[in-house]
Amino acid sequence: MGAPARAIPHASSRAAVLDVVRAAGTISRVGLIRATGFTGATISTVVRKLIEDGLVLETGRAESTGGKPRVLLQLNQSSRYAVGVHLDHSGIAYVLTDLGGSVVARMTRAGAGTDDPPAVVQRMAAEVAALIDGVGVDEARVLGIGLVSPGPLTPASGMGPAPPIMRQWEDFPLDEEVRRATGLPVVLGNDATAAALGEYWSGAVSGSSTFAAVYVCTGIGSGILINGIPYHGSSGNAGEIGHICLDPDGPECWCGARGCTETLAGPAAVVARARADAGAARAAGLDDDGGGPRRSSVAADFAAVARAARGGDPGARAVVDRSARYLAVATRTLANVLDLDRVVLTGQSLAVAGSLYLPVVQEELDRAFFSRATHPVAVHLSTSAATAPAIGAATTVLQSELVPLQPGTRIPGDLAEPEQAAPGPVGA
Amino acid sequence: MGAPARAIPHASSRAAVLDVVRAAGTISRVGLIRATGFTGATISTVVRKLIEDGLVLETGRAESTGGKPRVLLQLNQSSRYAVGVHLDHSGIAYVLTDLGGSVVARMTRAGAGTDDPPAVVQRMAAEVAALIDGVGVDEARVLGIGLVSPGPLTPASGMGPAPPIMRQWEDFPLDEEVRRATGLPVVLGNDATAAALGEYWSGAVSGSSTFAAVYVCTGIGSGILINGIPYHGSSGNAGEIGHICLDPDGPECWCGARGCTETLAGPAAVVARARADAGAARAAGLDDDGGGPRRSSVAADFAAVARAARGGDPGARAVVDRSARYLAVATRTLANVLDLDRVVLTGQSLAVAGSLYLPVVQEELDRAFFSRATHPVAVHLSTSAATAPAIGAATTVLQSELVPLQPGTRIPGDLAEPEQAAPGPVGA
Repeated sequence: MGAPARAIPHASSRAAVLDVVRAAGTISRVGLIRATGFTGATISTVVRKLIEDGLVLETGRAESTGGKPRVLLQLNQSSRYAVGVHLDHSGIAYVLTDLGGSVVARMTRAGAGTDDPPAVVQRMAAEVAALIDGVGVDEARVLGIGLVSPGPLTPASGMGPAPPIMRQWEDFPLDEEVRRATGLPVVLGNDATAAALGEYWSGAVSGSSTFAAVYVCTGIGSGILINGIPYHGSSGNAGEIGHICLDPDGPECWCGARGCTETLAGPAAVVARARADAGAARAAGLDDDGGGPRRSSVAADFAAVARAARGGDPGARAVVDRSARYLAVATRTLANVLDLDRVVLTGQSLAVAGSLYLPVVQEELDRAFFSRATHPVAVHLSTSAATAPAIGAATTVLQSELVPLQPGTRIPGDLAEPEQAAPGPVGA
Repeated sequence: MGAPARAIPHASSRAAVLDVVRAAGTISRVGLIRATGFTGATISTVVRKLIEDGLVLETGRAESTGGKPRVLLQLNQSSRYAVGVHLDHSGIAYVLTDLGGSVVARMTRAGAGTDDPPAVVQRMAAEVAALIDGVGVDEARVLGIGLVSPGPLTPASGMGPAPPIMRQWEDFPLDEEVRRATGLPVVLGNDATAAALGEYWSGAVSGSSTFAAVYVCTGIGSGILINGIPYHGSSGNAGEIGHICLDPDGPECWCGARGCTETLAGPAAVVARARADAGAARAAGLDDDGGGPRRSSVAADFAAVARAARGGDPGARAVVDRSARYLAVATRTLANVLDLDRVVLTGQSLAVAGSLYLPVVQEELDRAFFSRATHPVAVHLSTSAATAPAIGAATTVLQSELVPLQPGTRIPGDLAEPEQAAPGPVGA
């Protein structure tokens, strides 16, 4: 008869208040009451505790409209930190952010390559320690590690299925091993979703209600944000545009399907086509007598083809243009299904080739996006492609302290009745 | 630095409480406090008003765990009603539901066909009046009309762009005209999204977190529900799987793109291919000397082809199988992008041909859904395909009284401070 009752998610009013303080910059207690809808009693209780814990500072007074001036509150940025790690075949990026999400340290190290996962985890633990020590942050103030890598990820057992070049990571208990090696809590995530979150926190896409980060590194994926909240799908594997089918009878993909965008247009496909074109191969230094050391990764070879294309080599340009047209069509399909209003092109490969892809994707959406009569889809290049996934990974840790007032958030009517904060579903 | 603050949507605690009562069947005031997180004062204020307005009834007492027995509350089903209208080229379906979403009256009349919109609106007004009078419901108790039709819809100006066979409706001020003709408030919606909502309210997909209704009537679309809440996208046009590209070099679609699923596999494509096959055309009565009156719509011709296929005509079967394979691939793309856990096949055309499509779609998802190692995608046929969109349309009206506790809903801490119920965004 009626719809089944929905489970009502737990919410932390402390985290909600903290997020409003962060977003506001400075705000009074009265402002917090207006912004959160909490009672004055709730706000004063929560704020007192946040000040005791050192997360919030009182800072001067604002002229009030009559009555005594109001004390302003602001986030104590340096009271807590989070580590973000982006683990990929071709590189591992690290960032340390403060409670406000500002990057206070960053570094990039060699990728996972073909090393055994346990060895890579040991190295990551040492590199995370170096990141934290390097800026003299007390590890007791580090909330944890956000670790993202090519998906799909299962929280308990890492990547499954893993992309072919990271096959040895499939079903490796990534979070458990990193937690043991570093002594810090670990939150796993998908690199493309983290990239979208990183773009959002960087303020690059403010005002967008339905935003996707089209993410091309070694493979092709996307991260989806709805009103600033990551959309994960039923198992954390949403946004797999690399496996949008563009040709039901096309070549087989490692995922088991045919004609996937990644197989037709991904960096590996671009490199293979460039190798098959003598001129393009020579221009990109892909021919065996091209001199110089063999490159270690598909991403590096792809970057070489992109440079040759930008340099004017017609063969390399043709190969990249073909890839761009396929990616543009897949992006249009994503936009048609989600009714997107904004797309950011990001990821290591688009950081080097984005200028060649951007006009093709924008033209495709302007010409053929289904709802183009209603609104355009704005496409732009990421300005932080190299670190966006690591920054997004760190923010997922910060959000354990700073839960935004987001879809699903429920606010208890009175903190003095904590058992009301997390009610169970009603009826059935 | 930090993420931009989000706008905080308005919430009605009255509607939230009413939805919990509906979902629970019967519940005590104490149960409502637990379920909503509101204070006891808030609950007693809201419940008193709901009883005064006749929306909620007190019904007996439950044995309480010590203390005096608790009064149970339940929805007064017959206190309010809503009309749902599904306007399509080939038929117009009407339902009248009570406050609990139960259908108390339904009827189907001739479709919009090629008639002028104003004439169709006058007829709809008369048919809505007949629907309400037929069961002797006081029109004062009818909250309004939910009107859904092929999208995309713009609330102010109807369909834009409209599918070719309903071109005369493009930019017709549908809501305004129907409001004037009926004297009832009108809420416009997309038929595929309404179909998904109808399936959800019918309880057919309980337990699904990310569900899509694949909707085939004259065209192909889909409705997406995330935790039971319709996903509309940035302009109400999400879910357009009819315009998922399956062949970048394919035939041009009315939407302006090439190789869209609807153009390759929609009912019109199936009928055209059947006409081109002498045997199939004869079996389906599509050949000009097939006898019988010419059918009025693509949907009716498609139904004839489907019947011929089910009857064993090899040509008709081949045409339908080809369509099913394309729809299966488009459904897999939708599932990969959204990480779906459930799909329902619905809409007038799948009501007649669903048994031919279901195994093909399920096999495709079992074999090639990207995250199949993590979870399956369950596909089933709608049991209420003919009325699901109209029922979903009616529920959108009910939700003006019954706002579920849903993503985006914010709860004021204290009803005595109403100005806190709808705070504006903080910071920027």
